[in-house]
Amino acid sequence: MQLFHGYIKEDKFHLHEHEINHCVRVLRKHAGDTIHFITGSGPLYKGHIEVATKQLVSGNFELIEERFGCFDYNLTVAIAPTKQLDRMEWFVEKAVEMGITKIVPILCDHSERRILKPGRLEKIALSATKQSLKGALVSIAPLITFRDFIEGQSVDYIAHCGQGEKHAFKTQISEQNGPITIMIGPEGDFSETEIKLALEKGITPVDLGKSRLRTETAALVAVATLYQRHL
Amino acid sequence: MQLFHGYIKEDKFHLHEHEINHCVRVLRKHAGDTIHFITGSGPLYKGHIEVATKQLVSGNFELIEERFGCFDYNLTVAIAPTKQLDRMEWFVEKAVEMGITKIVPILCDHSERRILKPGRLEKIALSATKQSLKGALVSIAPLITFRDFIEGQSVDYIAHCGQGEKHAFKTQISEQNGPITIMIGPEGDFSETEIKLALEKGITPVDLGKSRLRTETAALVAVATLYQRHL
Repeated sequence: MQLFHGYIKEDKFHLHEHEINHCVRVLRKHAGDTIHFITGSGPLYKGHIEVATKQLVSGNFELIEERFGCFDYNLTVAIAPTKQLDRMEWFVEKAVEMGITKIVPILCDHSERRILKPGRLEKIALSATKQSLKGALVSIAPLITFRDFIEGQSVDYIAHCGQGEKHAFKTQISEQNGPITIMIGPEGDFSETEIKLALEKGITPVDLGKSRLRTETAALVAVATLYQRHL
Repeated sequence: MQLFHGYIKEDKFHLHEHEINHCVRVLRKHAGDTIHFITGSGPLYKGHIEVATKQLVSGNFELIEERFGCFDYNLTVAIAPTKQLDRMEWFVEKAVEMGITKIVPILCDHSERRILKPGRLEKIALSATKQSLKGALVSIAPLITFRDFIEGQSVDYIAHCGQGEKHAFKTQISEQNGPITIMIGPEGDFSETEIKLALEKGITPVDLGKSRLRTETAALVAVATLYQRHL
């Protein structure tokens, strides 16, 4: 099934500008054709095209499925963006395919990458959402410092490679209801100060298995753990 | 810890040619220095450099750890190489980081990529092995047809997206001892004939969760499932 990204306005659906060319020029859809589209908020719709020009695709629509391709957990991964951007991009794609609610890029003491443009990540997320047949778009937050992040919201877990007692993430989340937030550190791990701050806030230190994983691999293992939780 | 790839010959260790430049020119190691190295068969060694030239790094050595960074399962993933090679490369890196024993590229009815050069995949595997601190190199088999593969060896599981009864891979492997082999199909899935052949051979059909996953993501979920099995 080919999915488009659209929006609803005054009882009609409209495709977003970036989808029109593919719909009209590549797939040669025209008035009278039906397409499937998502708005990003969750549902799957069927659209009956009434107008199809180079500037506009719109028409009537019907709701097909309320929570399309939804998953049964709410997972936020706060991750220090990797030095090589393609590693972060891979993570976004894979996390969306499996199912993730929100990605928060965090700026840590040891972060080498200190600037992140969200545009390309959002494009990758949209493409993976459509490809993996989901109705809800993952939210990609603006870059925030580690300290602001743990001050500003409830965080459940910190996955770090340092010393000290840690719990298996898989066991911790096996029976946890409600939203889950886990933080994954940069290439050089969280700093000792950051780990101390997190523990003081009551954030549970977890490990994701015994291999030394790269940042984006650790984040993926966390997502895969939730994805497979109830199988 | 910085790891090198070497071999042992006549009671001395020698670094492989592709490692010498990094050791001698970049890290400026010389006679009298010690380095850590793996041969790819499992152990971690410490090497005492006696000769360090642009052509040769060698010396005495001692065994540090017999099964260095080993994992407690034996997993073979037979995967149809993806059309875009970087997706396959990415899978190899992540699978090695988590822990995998063997990767077998298989040629399926719907495979778009019908040629695969193993050189680059082996290089990525070596790099990930060193980076994730493991002593055993993953084996990357030559490309083989689906039919030859299922005829030639015992295969446990086939993950496909078609109809029919399937079992959750996670549940299936939770108590399985001994080597595990799973097959992951190409972008267009296994053909109906291939699925039928597999079932006739007694290969168990499995699913890896309810999302529609890309080839390399499905393979990665299978590895992550084993990696997290006993946490």
